[in-house]
Amino acid sequence: MIYLDNAATSFPKPSKVYEAVMNCMKNYCANPGRGSHNMAIKSSLKIMETRDLLSEIFNIKNPLNIVFTKNATEALNIAIRGLFKKGDHVLSTVIEHNSVLRPLYSMAKLGVEVTLISSDRAGYINPLDIKEEIKVNTKAIIVNHASNVLGSIQEVNSIGKIAKKYGLIFVVDASQSAGCLSIDVERDNIDLLAFPGHKGLLGPQGTGGLYIREGINIKSIIEGGTGSGSNSMIQPKELPDRFESGTLNTPGIVGLGEGLKFIKKIGIDNIYREEMNLTEQLALELKKLPFIKIYGDISLKSRVAVISFNIDGIDASIVGEELNEAEIAVRTGYHCAALIHNIIGTDYKGTVRVSPGCFNTSKDIDELVKNIIKIYKSK
Amino acid sequence: MIYLDNAATSFPKPSKVYEAVMNCMKNYCANPGRGSHNMAIKSSLKIMETRDLLSEIFNIKNPLNIVFTKNATEALNIAIRGLFKKGDHVLSTVIEHNSVLRPLYSMAKLGVEVTLISSDRAGYINPLDIKEEIKVNTKAIIVNHASNVLGSIQEVNSIGKIAKKYGLIFVVDASQSAGCLSIDVERDNIDLLAFPGHKGLLGPQGTGGLYIREGINIKSIIEGGTGSGSNSMIQPKELPDRFESGTLNTPGIVGLGEGLKFIKKIGIDNIYREEMNLTEQLALELKKLPFIKIYGDISLKSRVAVISFNIDGIDASIVGEELNEAEIAVRTGYHCAALIHNIIGTDYKGTVRVSPGCFNTSKDIDELVKNIIKIYKSK
Repeated sequence: MIYLDNAATSFPKPSKVYEAVMNCMKNYCANPGRGSHNMAIKSSLKIMETRDLLSEIFNIKNPLNIVFTKNATEALNIAIRGLFKKGDHVLSTVIEHNSVLRPLYSMAKLGVEVTLISSDRAGYINPLDIKEEIKVNTKAIIVNHASNVLGSIQEVNSIGKIAKKYGLIFVVDASQSAGCLSIDVERDNIDLLAFPGHKGLLGPQGTGGLYIREGINIKSIIEGGTGSGSNSMIQPKELPDRFESGTLNTPGIVGLGEGLKFIKKIGIDNIYREEMNLTEQLALELKKLPFIKIYGDISLKSRVAVISFNIDGIDASIVGEELNEAEIAVRTGYHCAALIHNIIGTDYKGTVRVSPGCFNTSKDIDELVKNIIKIYKSK
Repeated sequence: MIYLDNAATSFPKPSKVYEAVMNCMKNYCANPGRGSHNMAIKSSLKIMETRDLLSEIFNIKNPLNIVFTKNATEALNIAIRGLFKKGDHVLSTVIEHNSVLRPLYSMAKLGVEVTLISSDRAGYINPLDIKEEIKVNTKAIIVNHASNVLGSIQEVNSIGKIAKKYGLIFVVDASQSAGCLSIDVERDNIDLLAFPGHKGLLGPQGTGGLYIREGINIKSIIEGGTGSGSNSMIQPKELPDRFESGTLNTPGIVGLGEGLKFIKKIGIDNIYREEMNLTEQLALELKKLPFIKIYGDISLKSRVAVISFNIDGIDASIVGEELNEAEIAVRTGYHCAALIHNIIGTDYKGTVRVSPGCFNTSKDIDELVKNIIKIYKSK
């Protein structure tokens, strides 16, 4: 199968990811932080190694300020549910994924004021539009670094400057950017960074995390055993324990560590360039086809490797099925981002989304384009 | 290493668990429920297979009433944070794990009334004590099926009858019983069953789940993309989607499926008997040693394979370290159960906990006993 659904989960992973997961499971996978025996200690140390690698990639001063979660969605829910109380105002955008929009919708019902900044049709937010909406009760700005539908990259550095200037907490959803764009929590003034482990960071499913800047107070939504302060009924306040209740996914986190080492070796810029070469190849070919409607900025400036399109007169889901028949995996439909489809006018049909990863080749794109033409012609 | 810390995480796993995790990761691991391509469909089907196997083992009518979580702690937090509002009364016990005690403590601060029933020194709760504390505003009973410190098994069937009679929601924490004791949500009137995947069910870390009886309304604590109703900002109400936001841990869940098949093949009763044989062997040997204090019911009636003890005059953590030197893995300390240590008088020292699993042998216990004697004599 030609896999072009990397914005959902990257596939395949570097071979060392597989090896590390298996080695962990077969040889030392005990409870990290819960025992004093060698297997538990090794599990803890390996988890710490991944924390260190994450700190390096995101320029985080203290690795203990990273908490592991099961996915980016859990990380975003910790941030959103833990930060706000009734009467607070939060600024976010229409390009957010449902992992931000749905918790925000729930918080709004509890009396949190939510303002969603609109984007242009290409999926870009103007930082000045955010600035204009800041009020006395504004507490935070939440922004999707790169859209999972249009690939549009937001100016997090400019938005971070605004957040800092007005004393607001800056929350970044790096679901589509971690592993392919440079993220520096210091340079970009990011206070909370949510990221999945299983997408651009090339780790296994069941992994993700949240960076929490020192001094930011968040309520925990999941409490329980942490291996620390065990004889107290009160959840420990220290990071990462405060947000890491219950047994962690040790093999997953160990695998994520190998994904991070791979990225470090190849270089984020090289991965981005490689993925964008494929994306440009696809865009160029699609632009030649008059029956194709591409969404977002077709100049591909400030984009990640995601292209959404439709074929004239053919439902996106049919295109997906036909491509699947041809052994090509893409995603079709609404992509779990409730508001963006309204902006691009696809709220009743969704799109076909192609997302190349660092293991795809130019031949994969040729094969995809060949099949898109075939699908159109056969209808 | 002789691994005797199975109450924390079972180790090793059946070989098919490893194979299934690897096969999934290497060959088809896409996003379940999110795409129409073959890899996504296969991921969905394999997850459904594990749901079916869980339904079988717990006698759950509709597999879709099981939601996958990252561990039992998340499952218990969904139950506890989702069920209660200010003014509700909840009955629980002092033998609970911190994954129940800590969320309950937080709910108490929000105005939920919490009554914790005491146990006897062997860790048994009298169901009549629970019955006596029921009030007009009592909404639920939460009980740890088997203690992770003393191994004491509670009479969930009797407690379930009381819950049913008084119209209360019955929540069972099966962290130490799933996979070694018979659990039947119909027979035992269990409304919510929380279980880890990585302990007795022999799956990988990063897995767990919550069964929610049809008709019980619980608020979700994590919301986001579910692959369903994607163009709405409102979290879907349907199970399991309501509680399964974000990408699931497909390889972990697939591995858990193989753990369940192994249990089905061997038989839960046989696994229990095998583990208890080792536990009895250990108890018999320890009873011969006058310098050993065993906690809980030493007749081993109504117990799971967990033994907590101390060596006279030697700190539990020192015993753990010395056993580790001898390549034997046990857990020492407070075991994340804040109140039980007060009952057994170990609140300032903790215990040494030994928890044999289905892959341990009689020789492992011999080796452990030999080393315990050696540690005592060398002091």
